[in-house]
This record gives sequence, C-alpha cells and structure tokens, in this order.
Amino acid sequence: MAQQPLLNRIHTPADLQEMSVQQLQQLCAEIREKLIQTVSKNGGHLASNLGVVELTVALHKVFQSSGDTIIWDVGHQCYTHKILTGRLQQMDSIRQEGGISGFPKRKESPYDPLDSGHSSTSISSAFGIANAKSLLNLPGSVVAVIGDGALTGGLAYEGLNNAGRYKKNFIVVLNDNHMSISTNVGSMARYLAVIRTKPFYLRMKVHLEKFLTHVPIIGKALRRFLIKSKSLLKTILYNDTLFDDMGFLYYGPIDGHDIEKLIDVLRLAQKLNQPVLVHVITKKGKGYPFAEKDPKAFHGVSSFDVETGEALTSSESFSEAFGVLMCCLAEADERVCAITAAMKPGTGLSEFARIYKERFFDVGIAEEHAVTFAGGLAAGGMLPVFAVYSTFLQRSYDQIIHDAALQNVKVTLAIDRAGIVGEDGETHQGIFDVAFLNSIPNVTVYSPCYFDELGPSFRNALYGCSGVAAVRYPRGGELYRPAGFQSGASTYTLWGDPSPNLLITYGRLFSFACMAQEELAHKGIHIRVVKLNQIKPLDPDVVELAAGSRQVFFYEEGMRSGGVGERLGALLAQREDFSGAYHLSAIEDCFVAQANMLRTLQLLRLDNEAMVEDITRELVKDDG
Amino acid sequence: MAQQPLLNRIHTPADLQEMSVQQLQQLCAEIREKLIQTVSKNGGHLASNLGVVELTVALHKVFQSSGDTIIWDVGHQCYTHKILTGRLQQMDSIRQEGGISGFPKRKESPYDPLDSGHSSTSISSAFGIANAKSLLNLPGSVVAVIGDGALTGGLAYEGLNNAGRYKKNFIVVLNDNHMSISTNVGSMARYLAVIRTKPFYLRMKVHLEKFLTHVPIIGKALRRFLIKSKSLLKTILYNDTLFDDMGFLYYGPIDGHDIEKLIDVLRLAQKLNQPVLVHVITKKGKGYPFAEKDPKAFHGVSSFDVETGEALTSSESFSEAFGVLMCCLAEADERVCAITAAMKPGTGLSEFARIYKERFFDVGIAEEHAVTFAGGLAAGGMLPVFAVYSTFLQRSYDQIIHDAALQNVKVTLAIDRAGIVGEDGETHQGIFDVAFLNSIPNVTVYSPCYFDELGPSFRNALYGCSGVAAVRYPRGGELYRPAGFQSGASTYTLWGDPSPNLLITYGRLFSFACMAQEELAHKGIHIRVVKLNQIKPLDPDVVELAAGSRQVFFYEEGMRSGGVGERLGALLAQREDFSGAYHLSAIEDCFVAQANMLRTLQLLRLDNEAMVEDITRELVKDDG
Repeated sequence: MAQQPLLNRIHTPADLQEMSVQQLQQLCAEIREKLIQTVSKNGGHLASNLGVVELTVALHKVFQSSGDTIIWDVGHQCYTHKILTGRLQQMDSIRQEGGISGFPKRKESPYDPLDSGHSSTSISSAFGIANAKSLLNLPGSVVAVIGDGALTGGLAYEGLNNAGRYKKNFIVVLNDNHMSISTNVGSMARYLAVIRTKPFYLRMKVHLEKFLTHVPIIGKALRRFLIKSKSLLKTILYNDTLFDDMGFLYYGPIDGHDIEKLIDVLRLAQKLNQPVLVHVITKKGKGYPFAEKDPKAFHGVSSFDVETGEALTSSESFSEAFGVLMCCLAEADERVCAITAAMKPGTGLSEFARIYKERFFDVGIAEEHAVTFAGGLAAGGMLPVFAVYSTFLQRSYDQIIHDAALQNVKVTLAIDRAGIVGEDGETHQGIFDVAFLNSIPNVTVYSPCYFDELGPSFRNALYGCSGVAAVRYPRGGELYRPAGFQSGASTYTLWGDPSPNLLITYGRLFSFACMAQEELAHKGIHIRVVKLNQIKPLDPDVVELAAGSRQVFFYEEGMRSGGVGERLGALLAQREDFSGAYHLSAIEDCFVAQANMLRTLQLLRLDNEAMVEDITRELVKDDG
Repeated sequence: MAQQPLLNRIHTPADLQEMSVQQLQQLCAEIREKLIQTVSKNGGHLASNLGVVELTVALHKVFQSSGDTIIWDVGHQCYTHKILTGRLQQMDSIRQEGGISGFPKRKESPYDPLDSGHSSTSISSAFGIANAKSLLNLPGSVVAVIGDGALTGGLAYEGLNNAGRYKKNFIVVLNDNHMSISTNVGSMARYLAVIRTKPFYLRMKVHLEKFLTHVPIIGKALRRFLIKSKSLLKTILYNDTLFDDMGFLYYGPIDGHDIEKLIDVLRLAQKLNQPVLVHVITKKGKGYPFAEKDPKAFHGVSSFDVETGEALTSSESFSEAFGVLMCCLAEADERVCAITAAMKPGTGLSEFARIYKERFFDVGIAEEHAVTFAGGLAAGGMLPVFAVYSTFLQRSYDQIIHDAALQNVKVTLAIDRAGIVGEDGETHQGIFDVAFLNSIPNVTVYSPCYFDELGPSFRNALYGCSGVAAVRYPRGGELYRPAGFQSGASTYTLWGDPSPNLLITYGRLFSFACMAQEELAHKGIHIRVVKLNQIKPLDPDVVELAAGSRQVFFYEEGMRSGGVGERLGALLAQREDFSGAYHLSAIEDCFVAQANMLRTLQLLRLDNEAMVEDITRELVKDDG
C-alpha cells in the first residue's frame, strides 16, 4: 500500500483546516495515487476524478460547515469528495456489491445531500436546497458543480434561468474540462472556448471585485453603482459573458489545479448576495499520463493495468456490433443518419462519425432535443437513428410521444445498455424503457439477444414498420447461445419441442432460458421456450399459444408495471379459454442496486437457476 | 357575416404576392375580425393569435415557395396561418369533432409539416428539417417561430445550442409578447426586457448589415472582417446579445405590427448563410380591447360574448378547488410550497401566489426543472407541490425517477387535466400519467372524483405516505354524485350491495359507473362498484375482492398499457383461485382526437352507456 501520511489524517473536511497550501498540494498527490489504484482495480470514472482533485479539496476547505451543501452534477467525479468525507477506508469497495457507490448517495453520508447519476440536474437541485434553507432560516452555502458537457443539457439552462434572479448567495462552479470542446459540440462549447481566451480581462474583474468588496462603504457603494448603471465600464466589468446576461456574476477563468487561487475565489464567491458562476478550467486525467493523453478512453473504464493503462478485459460488445451495422446501413441507404447525445464512443458510433461525417450529429447531452431533432429529420425525408443508453432515453419520454410517435414519422431508437447494467447501480439501470415505450402508440419495439439479430431487427425497424421503432440490446456482449440456434426476422422464435408448458422471454434472458431448459431436460422436465423478437406490438399468435398452455412462465429484465409480461397476463385474464397458470417474474416496484450483472440477475431471480427452481416447483406441484 | 373582400381572395400564400402593404394591412384587419368571431364561438386561443396576424402575413409573404417551412412553436397561434393556407372556410369547425384542429396538423395541409401542441420544440424540429433539406439537396428556407415564454424551456436552449454552429441559413423568429415578462419569470425574461430597451442601437446594426450585404465586394469583405475581428466595433455590432453568443446573428427588436419592416427584415434574414434570430415585439390580444387589457384571460378561452368579452359558461373547476385547498394547507404548515411551470392561473394558484409569495415558484415553461427543483426543496426540508397538467408532466418522467422517487423525498405532484381534455385534442390528452407513474418505484398515486376528495387525497399525499405522491384530477368540474355518497380517505370505497360482479374504476369514471349501476338496477342487473381512491400501490384487498368475484369489469380513462386495469388483470392471471371473467376497457394503443369530453368518452366506450351495454351483454351470457 502506498504511503499516504496526509490523507490518513483526513476524517472530515474540517481536518483540511490546519493544512497549509503546500500540504494541500501534497494531499492532492496522495489522493491521485489512491484514485488510480482504486479505479484500476474496480473500474469506474478515472479521468474526470483526476481532474477535480484540487477543486474538491478547495471546495471542502472553504465550504465545510455542516450547513454547507455541495451538489456534484452527474456525480461520477465525486471520488475525492468521498475520500475527504470519511469514506477513505471504503474506497476499495467502490462499485462493488454491498460497497460504496461510484456516485453520491444519501444513505452513505450527510455530505451527500442527494443521489445522482444523470446529467445537468445539479443547478436545479441545488437551487431547491438553497430556497429551502432560506425559507427555513437555515445557515450554509449551496454550491452546484457542473461540467461543461452537462451545461449543454436543457435542464441546466432551466436551472440557470430560474436561479439567475435570486437575491441571495448561490454558487455554480463550472468545471470546464474541455469535454464538450473536444467533440466540437454546440455553440455553448464554442462560446466557452472564446471566453477561456480572455484570462487577463476577467482576472482584472476578480481583482476589482475583491477590492470593492473589501473596501467598506465606498467600495460597496461603488460596486452597487457599477452594477446598476448602464455605463460602458459596467458593460465591460459586469455584463461581458452570457452568464452575466443570465443574472450570474461571472468569475473566471480560474486554473483548476491552482489550489490557492481556487480557495481565494471561492471565498470571494461565498460572500456575495447574488448568484455567482465560477468558471474553473481543469484537465481531465490530470496526473496520470495515459489518461491525460486519452481522457475519453479513461472516462468510464473497467479495471486496467496501472503500468500500461491497458484494460484487463475486453470482448466484442453490442455497441461495437451496432456501430459496424450502422456503417453498412448508411452505405446502402443515403437517408440513414445517426444521432448521439454526447455518447459517440459509448454507443459505438466513432467509425460511423468518421466515414459519414455529414450524416452524424452529436447534439450534446440533450436527449430531449435529440428525439425532436430526429423527428424533424424524419419529417424532412431522412432515416435518423438515435443511439442512446436506455436510462438516458427516460429524458425523452414526452418527445417520443409528441415529436415522433404522434407525427408517425420514421424515427429509430437504438437503445443501448437495456436491462441491468451492473456496477453503476440505481441511476443507470436500463429497466424502464419497455414499460414507457409500451405506453406509446405508433411504436414498435425489437429486442435482439445476439449480434446477428441486430441486422434483422434494425432492418425491420427502418423498413419493416411505420412510425417510431426501437431496438433494445444489453450492455456488454453475447451470452450463451444453444447449438443450432438460427436468428430470424420473425416476431418470435420457438425453441425446443412442443410442450404444454411455456417459458416466454426476450432479449438477453433467452440465454438463461436456454440454459434452464437444458438443465430441466436433464431432470426430465420439458418446457418450450418462446423468444420474443418483437415485443411491441405483441404478436397475437403468442397470446394464442400461451392461452392454450397449461403453465406459462414469463421472465422479464425490466419493470413489471407496463412490461410485456403484465400485458400478456392481462390478456390471458381476459381470455375465457385460458385455464392454465401464469407465472410472471420481473422487477417489482423497486430500484436496483449496484452489483455485477450476473449477480444482479441472480438477486432478482431472473437467471437460469431461478428459472429452474421456479419451474421445477410449479410443475411438480401441477403433477402432484 | 362580416365583409372580407381581401381575405376571400387568399387561397394560398402566393395570393399575398400581388397585394400592396396597404392591402396587407387591410387584410390583417379582416383576419382579426374573423379570429374574434371564430374564437368567441368555438373557444380556443385568442390573445396569442391576435398578436401574430402581421407576423404571419409577413412570413407567408416572404416564405411562400412550396419548399419553405414554417414551424410554429406550441402551435396555438397558428390560426392566421391556417386562414392563409387554404383553411378559411373550415375555420368555423375549429376545435370541433371532425373539424380542423386548433394546432398545426400534418394531415390537414402540406403547410403544416408537423403536429404540435407542447412548448419549446420548434427550434429542434425545424433544425432537423433544415438538415434533411440540406442532405437531400432540397430547396427552401426553414423558419421556427417561438414565443418568449417557450424560450424558457430547456429544449429550446438545446436546439439553439445545436443550431448555433450551423453553416447555412436557419431562421428563428422570437415572437416576444412579454408573456414571460408579465409573470416576472426567470433571467431570460429580464434579459429580453433589457435588450428591448436598445432599439436604436440595434436598429443601427440592421441598417449597417443591410448596407454591407448590398454593397458588392467591399461590403461583404468589410462584413467578414468585422465578424472575424475582435475589435470593439465587432463587439458592439455582432456580439451584443446572448443570441450572438450562441452563434445566431441577432436582428431586433422589430415592431411586430409593422408589416413593412417585418417583410424587410425577413427578406434580409433569408439571404444569410448562417443562423439568424429575428426578435419581434408583438402585443397579445392586439386589436380586441378586452384581450389587450387582459391577455392572460384570453390566452386559452371557452366561447365568449364578443361585445362584452364575458365567458358564456363557467362553473367551479377542480383547479379552483385545488387552489383553495392549497391555501389551507399552506396556512396550516409553513413547509408547504407551490411550483408551477408558467401555469399559475390555469392550475388555480393565483390566490396562493398572492398570499404566499415567498413559497410560490413560477419556474417558466420548464417542467423538468420544476421536478428537480422540487426534489431539492424537499431534500432541504420543505413540502413542495408541483401543479401541472398531466400532458406536460410527460416531460418530467426522468426527473420524477431520478430526482424525486430515487431520492425518496416528499415531492407532491398535483396533476390537473388528468384524463380526456376535449377540444385541444391529441397533444393535450392526459392519458399517459397513470401508466408512466405506475412504472416508477416509491410513488403513490391518488385519484379523487369529487372536490371534497381533494382534501383527503392531498393530506394523504403530504403526510400519509413516504416518497413521491401524485394526486390526479380531471379538467373541469364534478359530474354525477349519487345520493348519500360520502368521501373518505381510505384506499378504496365500495358502492352498492355485495354482488358476485364488480365494476372497478377510479377518478371521474366513478360518476359514469354510478349512473350505469342505477340503469342496470332498473333492468334487474346488480353490480357492485369499487371506487379506487389510491391507484398505486393497488390495495391487495381489491385484488382479493376481484379474485373472489364471478365477473370483473374494469374501466380506465387512460392508456391500457401500464394502467391499473392491466396491473389487476395480470395479478388475477397469476391467481390460482380466480376462475371468473375479467373485462378491461381502457385506451388501446392510439392517440385520441379532439371532440368534447363526453363525446370522447362515448367514442372510447368509457361512458355509462358503454358500461351498461358491456355488463348487460356479459352477465346475460353468463346466466345463459
């Protein structure tokens, strides 16, 4: 274990108080080493955490009374925050079953006021907390820390718009690590690039502001005059950025690795009775050369070798297979185009973006816009495919209804990370998409289980049905495939000999169903597996088949309410000719905690073992 | 009928071509008269339509080739557009069953490229269409017309952010009718108020721009130099608004009732190879004194008397009853606060806002922020109630999951206009909320049917359960209430004598169920009505009761998929002891078109007549 003399002295943020700037710098070095060790072992977000070490230390140095609140946008950059707030010893369990989360969690610490995981929420949440404090006369500052990427989300703008007229202290720290820049996304990114080039100009302003705030009476009066006047001086000093236009006093840009300056500016921001935006420039991956060189590769990673920076595991994923397929589809049809909400590599679209530059759209972290924009592209005659993680598509529910399905235009949703995602936990599970898509008219949903089913699914989605179509596929790669299994383009596939008992499922769970089928066969129990390829609309033949069966077992890797299993169950209840038994296993009304994917499915009783147990029990009872 | 000599000459926008400015002005007067007549009879949006008469005429004068596209944000201000694009004769049928819609509709006209009804979508949709045109080498300009209110929505910002780096012509017309100002919402509203005061300054810019664009070679070179340089002149000329910062060339403010100037500026905007934002100042209600004086009252109206401006019908609504209740709740508990997304009068919160100014938050048209902000308020110790129309809450699906339910904080949703809303049609029906809330853990949903049930429902929501709670109630007022019916705070109410047959429903449909029960009793058919007061979680006693029944009829004013009826059906299918018949009537996988509420329920077979027919048929069959 590495030496960490200073780090071991930190039990609460108050312990930062006695440390000199030099000691804080040394502390940051120790934290960096701890971060690299931890993430190389457990996986997680590395580059972003390395980037905010000094910022986090400075924030906790300045805002450390128990009433102070720091909200981390997305929350993937909270590792140093966890280390400084009493969770150093638990860092080795991060992202593991039963361990601490890779994101802020209320149950872990009073320093985590909210759980998080999705982007662009921090300003709104923090502004809510600030208003509550004010109404309840509670002390303490509220700070939202948001990245430049997250600032492309409309929710962040809605928060700025609401908070910009506040008459009390409210601090937004813009952690600008050039992420939105590197991908060349949007005018906000370009705008930040412009104001980043005016350091002297704006540094002047900080000094003046500091001066004015510290000179009693005259300084304050002069400051008030400047703010209220419409003089040119005011324009230069107080109205020179878009954030000033939005009602925030802008401070920046500040070197996010200069801990002394950070402390200085945050102390200044803390004293003002108005909204303040502190623009901090940080370097993603700071201090780990492999991550500095390729921060995107080290954004969210699996375990890796610290010496070489190489990932320890790797195998083909659905995202990659989708990326290859998209290139083929685009080659064959000039109308095919791809949209991503700041997830180009994650969704496998890097190659597509390179080859079909004109037909590739990275819209920033803006899932709502992505769908509405896709609706416009489709109305204009293109065939847009929006590739998005299931959990983030939740953001576009109304846009799918209003701007795509209602128009009945050909918008295709490529839903990656559908189902259990594992270590990222509650905020990232892809377990709602089937339920919410089922509720929307004019939507067809396909659920492939193997790479070679992506082709037929997407071809059906693009050319085989009208209106909105979705193809959903899991995180990672393929699981068990029984010998002789052939993929097809039909709405469902029967697997195994006819039997009065059916196991119905879709997507990745088909692999578990086949394993269960084989294990049951060894016990002399025979069951036929129905694999749904198209899950909405549900093929009436499947309902017929189920209605004629003795026992029907449905397994679903998603929410029960609104899911396919509930739909089938209600249809069977309405059938006068169904006298069999229906068994439905899905995710009951709860959020699903972190653990690896297989273990999570086991806990949810959706794996092959649970299937074997359930079916054995029921069929033996049936025979008895 | 009023004289409309010029209006009768307009069959397509091309017919505007031959008209002089004076004639166009006369045409606008004729259109105004037609608008007032039509809306006074059919109800609809008046003030906003009166405000954009000149703007619409100017847009169609300039953009009239078949390739040109105009997207109206929200779309409630499209009446003049409909009149000019061949729908004058159909205006009398507006908002009626089988008539034309009060919003743009693709099926009505090639001049309506998309359906709309929700706010802040136009920039995204239009930018999609612009990109499609460009990729497919199709001609024509694309214009998005968005109000200052809609500009507070994050989706609009996401659209601006994406479009701001476009290298081709793309036009956004900001129709600034001070709506966001009058309610004092947000920093964007304040910002617009500031730039509105600089007319000379900015008019200078338009003139210079015009000059530069028209002087060959030197003018263009000078313009390019100015845009690229970092000179002070450039700052003044080209970088003086937030919209310039976002990559749009800003033109404005323009008097939106000066048709000559409008045509002038739009022609200029049409010629530029970059995104342009034209800031137009209009007066809501222009030309009808009652509406000019109180534009909010004439935003969306029922039929009214043209001479007096008085509404022809009025009765107490759930919104009003909710408003009164909120004042009582706030009086009794200082933690209670109210949030609206620019719907203060619509949701009945005007009085609350007046009395409890500190605890009232109008966040602008920003439903996502409203929920995340509420989550922050709740985490900070307050009891926020977000009052919102069901259809607009669709926007907050992810925020309800991520920023409220997952946190398990006490956020209360007051869902107005739940169920069928009538004349506004497809885009406004409140038929998805039960399905999408059912899919979310830690959410409790109440569904009162009468005013006096609002109290117990909200008290349960605020104090009787943990986590997120929703209370949903319909548009308009109470319907039939059987003699002797007493409201309670229990999860369900039984109505009528015990019977082997049950009719289960919730919310407004209980009135129809009681009428059906009485009609059936006259025929000698007895059925017990189960009124669900709490629809999520479903009380297990109700499932028990249903499982022990012979025939169960479930009626639901919402989507079948994910609804309560489907949930109950699947639970019954899983019961080994249920041998009865289950009949589920809900809204099957389709959007619901405009017609009045009663007629719509009749068409959906959810009214008392359908209940009587269904139940008679099934019970007679059962006896036979």
